[in-house]
Amino acid sequence: MAKVNVSLPQGTRDFGAEVVRKRTYIFSTIKSVFELYGFEPLETPAMENLDTLMGKYGEEGDKLIFKILNNGLDNPDKQQKIKEDFEKVLAGKNSSGITERALKYDLTIPFARYVAMNHNQLTMPFKRYQVQPVWRADRPQKGRYREFYQCDADVVGSKSLLNEIELSNIYATVFNKLGVSVEIKINSRKILAALAEICGGADKMVDITIAIDKLDKIGIEKVKEELAQRGLNVAQISIIENYLNITGSNEEKLAAIKQLIGGNETGAKGIEEIETVYRQSAINNLQFDFTLARGLNYYTGVIFEVKANNVQMGSIGGGGRYDDLTGLFGVPNIPGVGISFGVDRIYDVMEELKLFPAGVHTGTKVLFFNLGDAESKKAFALMQELRSKGIAAELYHENSKFDKQFKYAEKKQIPFIVIIGTKELETNTCNIKELATGLQETVSFDEMLKKFTA
Amino acid sequence: MAKVNVSLPQGTRDFGAEVVRKRTYIFSTIKSVFELYGFEPLETPAMENLDTLMGKYGEEGDKLIFKILNNGLDNPDKQQKIKEDFEKVLAGKNSSGITERALKYDLTIPFARYVAMNHNQLTMPFKRYQVQPVWRADRPQKGRYREFYQCDADVVGSKSLLNEIELSNIYATVFNKLGVSVEIKINSRKILAALAEICGGADKMVDITIAIDKLDKIGIEKVKEELAQRGLNVAQISIIENYLNITGSNEEKLAAIKQLIGGNETGAKGIEEIETVYRQSAINNLQFDFTLARGLNYYTGVIFEVKANNVQMGSIGGGGRYDDLTGLFGVPNIPGVGISFGVDRIYDVMEELKLFPAGVHTGTKVLFFNLGDAESKKAFALMQELRSKGIAAELYHENSKFDKQFKYAEKKQIPFIVIIGTKELETNTCNIKELATGLQETVSFDEMLKKFTA
Repeated sequence: MAKVNVSLPQGTRDFGAEVVRKRTYIFSTIKSVFELYGFEPLETPAMENLDTLMGKYGEEGDKLIFKILNNGLDNPDKQQKIKEDFEKVLAGKNSSGITERALKYDLTIPFARYVAMNHNQLTMPFKRYQVQPVWRADRPQKGRYREFYQCDADVVGSKSLLNEIELSNIYATVFNKLGVSVEIKINSRKILAALAEICGGADKMVDITIAIDKLDKIGIEKVKEELAQRGLNVAQISIIENYLNITGSNEEKLAAIKQLIGGNETGAKGIEEIETVYRQSAINNLQFDFTLARGLNYYTGVIFEVKANNVQMGSIGGGGRYDDLTGLFGVPNIPGVGISFGVDRIYDVMEELKLFPAGVHTGTKVLFFNLGDAESKKAFALMQELRSKGIAAELYHENSKFDKQFKYAEKKQIPFIVIIGTKELETNTCNIKELATGLQETVSFDEMLKKFTA
Repeated sequence: MAKVNVSLPQGTRDFGAEVVRKRTYIFSTIKSVFELYGFEPLETPAMENLDTLMGKYGEEGDKLIFKILNNGLDNPDKQQKIKEDFEKVLAGKNSSGITERALKYDLTIPFARYVAMNHNQLTMPFKRYQVQPVWRADRPQKGRYREFYQCDADVVGSKSLLNEIELSNIYATVFNKLGVSVEIKINSRKILAALAEICGGADKMVDITIAIDKLDKIGIEKVKEELAQRGLNVAQISIIENYLNITGSNEEKLAAIKQLIGGNETGAKGIEEIETVYRQSAINNLQFDFTLARGLNYYTGVIFEVKANNVQMGSIGGGGRYDDLTGLFGVPNIPGVGISFGVDRIYDVMEELKLFPAGVHTGTKVLFFNLGDAESKKAFALMQELRSKGIAAELYHENSKFDKQFKYAEKKQIPFIVIIGTKELETNTCNIKELATGLQETVSFDEMLKKFTA
């Protein structure tokens, strides 16, 4: 036999039944809450035009986009042109002669593209959720894959804070349903902007947020060093340190932040917004965290991040308000706000804390043994009755040794076995064996059907 | 404003809420039946190693595979090598320096790859279902897309005809649940092989099946012409014509086929198999169709095809037995049998025949109007009570004109509106308006909650 190497592309995964069922449990829980809140499903294709994606994720992001090779490059009439086009690729540029399409890198840009294309037909505010895979040519490592699911809910076309309140409630409801204890952190990009203004101008905001964003990893002293390197003076760094040192209960933090930046107009607005969300969302695990920055992307107002308690794991959710997402596609002035769930990490948290319910593996409930032609015909008929009543059942595929059929049930974690042999066929009875307990009982066919459909 | 062209890649589609819900209805129905029959879910990545896919779909198929461009082609150290590699692409060959991965073309080969990689751990017979998108660089046209879903169930590791019987039952059950009237055609590749033997040898089988496969489109006279062109003589063509002319009830067809090819050993085996499936599946819409050939691919035994009645549409399902799928990946002698559902076509059939149930659009049930701060706070609290009881509800995002809020409900097809104004707030009542009938009633908050959660 020729040796054949079969493998999966690096950073991708097969999901067997047990994992699919656990993932489906997470997805269904999230979707059901999205639906309760009036969000509607949207699905966009795996591939987008390359133009749609390029330049939206920064220089590093662009490099991680999986591009699709055009077909028909061996067309003899076009060889010269294609060679020239390939020179551009070698120079790090894109060329529509070589690649016109790419796999989607996130769900946000395809959503923005969808809204830009369809905004005249959409009912505003447009509330959509989207649960689909995305692809990134990142270096694979523990917990980081090249194909992974994102799970987003966004509202566009509304500036109302009601949306932020609802989105924070969605976070709380989902994690409550999943049994995951979390802290939902809230801050506002307006508060960060106000801090920058107080430190001498809006142009400082990028430097400040980049440094603050590293606080978790490098600590306050290193953040101060970095701020100094980025040109902030001692007085400015002292303000930022005071800002980062705000601690205590939510009420204490509110009082402190009002004192520090409440005199600034942008700051006052930002504080008012997070206070409103906090007071109206009625969720006791919402926590002010002024060190929360959410990178450098498109957020402009309230921002969120979710951390799981009792486990070492990065954030398992995040989001916030953005002002003008579809402007990228020529449709300006559509405000938006959204949140995202990190499904792979939520899965890992639930595994580590053993939070998946026992019933999540809902496979076959009853295996009928196959003990010969006449016996299996009867078993087949009874099995079809069970199935017609919604009970997942199987008949072992052939008349094999008892032991072999038994092992099949064990491996597939089928909880009940029904045995119909010659004797049982004569007496219209069957033996039911429960695998977990080893208990066995002999009952009539009717009693057996009733037992499983009760 | 700069004009920006935004578009979707040719042959791909966005699915809005209504379409997602209808598609989900089809998927859930199929999956629930798969589960009833003991099949378990499997998911494989969108991309496979190019080696895994190439050479598995014939020359035409290979050309339709979407290949993914390797990243980092602008690496200056590798320019010379990459240029040489690109020469291979220009010559119509693959080169791992340019592309190592590709999007999956169907679900069968990735499944075979999965079984080959994991066969030692799998419980045999291994029954899996898989519902995922696939991609083909085909010329898009009505009903043919470059991204579409496949929906397959297969059993590997069992030669038992019980599997064929169950798969035919799955077809019947699914289409019955969906309300689609269908004819399930059954034939056997062994019967076609026998026909070829009777016509002078196994080497004739390819010619005969290619010609027979066109019968629907070109008619019997043209099929005969093609057979003659393919080197079959008058006597042979006459046998094939007799074969194709077999008509009548299933019993009549059985009698005729036994007379024509039952003397041939392979033929007798094939007839016995389809007769067993027919008699034991207890499905009255199973129809013998000896003209059914299912192309030239890997089938070796019983084959199926499903046609919808009362509508012009190609087959909406097909499948059959194959002997040695994983042999391609160095793991020989694992028999298999499977069926596939054509979800896009099933969707079109159900739209055309108006078979989607009215309740398939299960969006928001209740919209609370927003008529001011105090009013909307009360509405918000009541809405959260509804949501906590599983009722999808929304509060309009801002205090807008009555008319605007009303239109939102209409466009989103929200069946009920709840209005809480100043007067209602004072009297602890609300107005419920049903959009379909225009009926309006004033009830207490408690009565309202009861009405919707009843």
